Amino acid sequence: MSRQQRLNVLRQHMAEHRMSAVLLTDRFSKYSLADLYSASGYVLVTADHLLILVDGRYSAECRQNNPNTEVVTLTAKLPLAEVLAQHISGDETLFADASALSHLAWKTLENQCNAPLQHWDASVLRVHKYADEIAKIREAAAIADRALQAIKPLIRPGISEKALADHIEMAVRQAGGSKTSFDTVVVSGLRGALPHGRPTDKKLAAGELVTIDFGAVFQHYCSDMTRTFALGSVSSELKTLYDTVLLAQQSARDAVRPGIRCQELDAVARDIISAAGFGEYFSHNLGHGLGLDVHEAPALSPQNTQPLEPGMVITIEPGIYVPGLGGVRIEDDVLVTESGSEVLTKSPRDWEEMSELIKYF
Amino acid sequence: MSRQQRLNVLRQHMAEHRMSAVLLTDRFSKYSLADLYSASGYVLVTADHLLILVDGRYSAECRQNNPNTEVVTLTAKLPLAEVLAQHISGDETLFADASALSHLAWKTLENQCNAPLQHWDASVLRVHKYADEIAKIREAAAIADRALQAIKPLIRPGISEKALADHIEMAVRQAGGSKTSFDTVVVSGLRGALPHGRPTDKKLAAGELVTIDFGAVFQHYCSDMTRTFALGSVSSELKTLYDTVLLAQQSARDAVRPGIRCQELDAVARDIISAAGFGEYFSHNLGHGLGLDVHEAPALSPQNTQPLEPGMVITIEPGIYVPGLGGVRIEDDVLVTESGSEVLTKSPRDWEEMSELIKYF
Repeated sequence: MSRQQRLNVLRQHMAEHRMSAVLLTDRFSKYSLADLYSASGYVLVTADHLLILVDGRYSAECRQNNPNTEVVTLTAKLPLAEVLAQHISGDETLFADASALSHLAWKTLENQCNAPLQHWDASVLRVHKYADEIAKIREAAAIADRALQAIKPLIRPGISEKALADHIEMAVRQAGGSKTSFDTVVVSGLRGALPHGRPTDKKLAAGELVTIDFGAVFQHYCSDMTRTFALGSVSSELKTLYDTVLLAQQSARDAVRPGIRCQELDAVARDIISAAGFGEYFSHNLGHGLGLDVHEAPALSPQNTQPLEPGMVITIEPGIYVPGLGGVRIEDDVLVTESGSEVLTKSPRDWEEMSELIKYF
Repeated sequence: MSRQQRLNVLRQHMAEHRMSAVLLTDRFSKYSLADLYSASGYVLVTADHLLILVDGRYSAECRQNNPNTEVVTLTAKLPLAEVLAQHISGDETLFADASALSHLAWKTLENQCNAPLQHWDASVLRVHKYADEIAKIREAAAIADRALQAIKPLIRPGISEKALADHIEMAVRQAGGSKTSFDTVVVSGLRGALPHGRPTDKKLAAGELVTIDFGAVFQHYCSDMTRTFALGSVSSELKTLYDTVLLAQQSARDAVRPGIRCQELDAVARDIISAAGFGEYFSHNLGHGLGLDVHEAPALSPQNTQPLEPGMVITIEPGIYVPGLGGVRIEDDVLVTESGSEVLTKSPRDWEEMSELIKYF
């Protein structure tokens, strides 16, 4: 069972780094170890104990979800400070992720804790996915594929970006997702130059490209996929953008394997885009880790020297955004395997299929 | 124009509290002053300047949205540290909201700033709504009303909580909303005892109550409404819960006026629920402020001594949650006016209408 595997890995990490106590505060970490999917409450891990600390609203549900785990109900008479003091001695250090607590909350926690508080990057807990997690991400990816297939006949001149985004939301839910994993991006024509543009009432028009970036949530796990479609025949400039991004994306996808550094993978795509003369228009990282959160470690940035390892799930999403012309992005979710990689999102990307919409109008 | 009004109010607040420089970091504050709806970027306000500080991805859009405002593009050669040093002298203090930055981001900002960094509660910027904001919240409330009306025929035995939530998402969008303002709550039967339960595949059944808590987003502004329906005839225990919550909610709504303290308003509802013997089952605050964020100041908690003022928009949402029996919550959005209040969400609440669904089956 992956929950026990994760706990073992965390305890080993704690032993290696001489960490005697860790407090998990973000919903993703708490869910991954203790089935607590809430911004409220804490999970305290020491060498001998795993405690779930919640107020009265959550204790019954936590006990039900974790029959063999100690659930402590925090009250005015039993505040967090007292529970921490019971399990941590003053000469120990409590570790928590400083990126997952506001500065105000951090200062409050510091005051509640009898021991020094120190930052620790909790992403170690979630960066490797276990079999049950991979199965859920794979299904989230398949839901995104089915949803895109379902709305494809609607991608035609006359429909607004907003209406298309609304249909995607419903298609994801009808395909088995609980919701989309973030606000769907639909940008068409000149708006394609906005990497994260919100869908507007602008209507799709013939001769434009339209970029759709969305994902599905399945049992709390996310997918994230982007496709750029052509609405009939488009200018050769736009076709060049597409060909360049597709080559860069395909090359980066093919390069995914254990041991390659994040920055090396980013360079595979970035070098192709730069060589084509569009380097300045690829204004973001190649991709990011994916799991309970739609953006998690590792960042596929030009700076990140971390090597990929089996069990990581990443997005590969190069893009080119040219003001006054338009934009293209192609994104897939990729699992790093022992022998290489497996692409989880399978919707077509080749130009014939992306431009076949011409037959609809 | 409300953006200028807000800036004037902020500058007056800064003068009164001898604050010479404020850095806004959260998307809601940045949007309210500078039309920047993004987690990325900053807005720096001094006595003489308002600067928008963004990386290259956002500068063109910011310039377009703020033709009379200085937009600075942050780069490796012009980092935040340098812009701050240009506008703040070392003997001044920079104020930022420590609840809107992670501890890690706060420490980074501290290192980037030549002046001391101090916490300041940015809610002062948004707690009073201006005419254009009220108009948007009013429309967000009307969209929620229309969406609930549209899905009402679907609230019947046999539909799952999840399917109902999916229909609500689509109804909100079809009624003019950009999306729901948070993950819709649909809990039926015994699950009604979970104040924030996620919708499941459980099917609604005759004799149950079902609680639906959702909201709409209209031009970035939120509504938030809860109704509890009866699926045919229910037990007298459940009817007692409903009558008690309705009386508490109506009484608190009627008590909204400038000058009443948040804790006094909370007590109006809490006293009624306690007198009926359900005090321990009303496990949350009476309500919260509402605007760009679905939860903002003021908190209508038993602890908050802040008096209500005209222009505040709040939710009034008492509930009773009895494990093993079920639950009831009724919630409306209320604008505090000079003379009293105006209820923005207008969907029916009286028992006849909430239990009329019996006629459908």
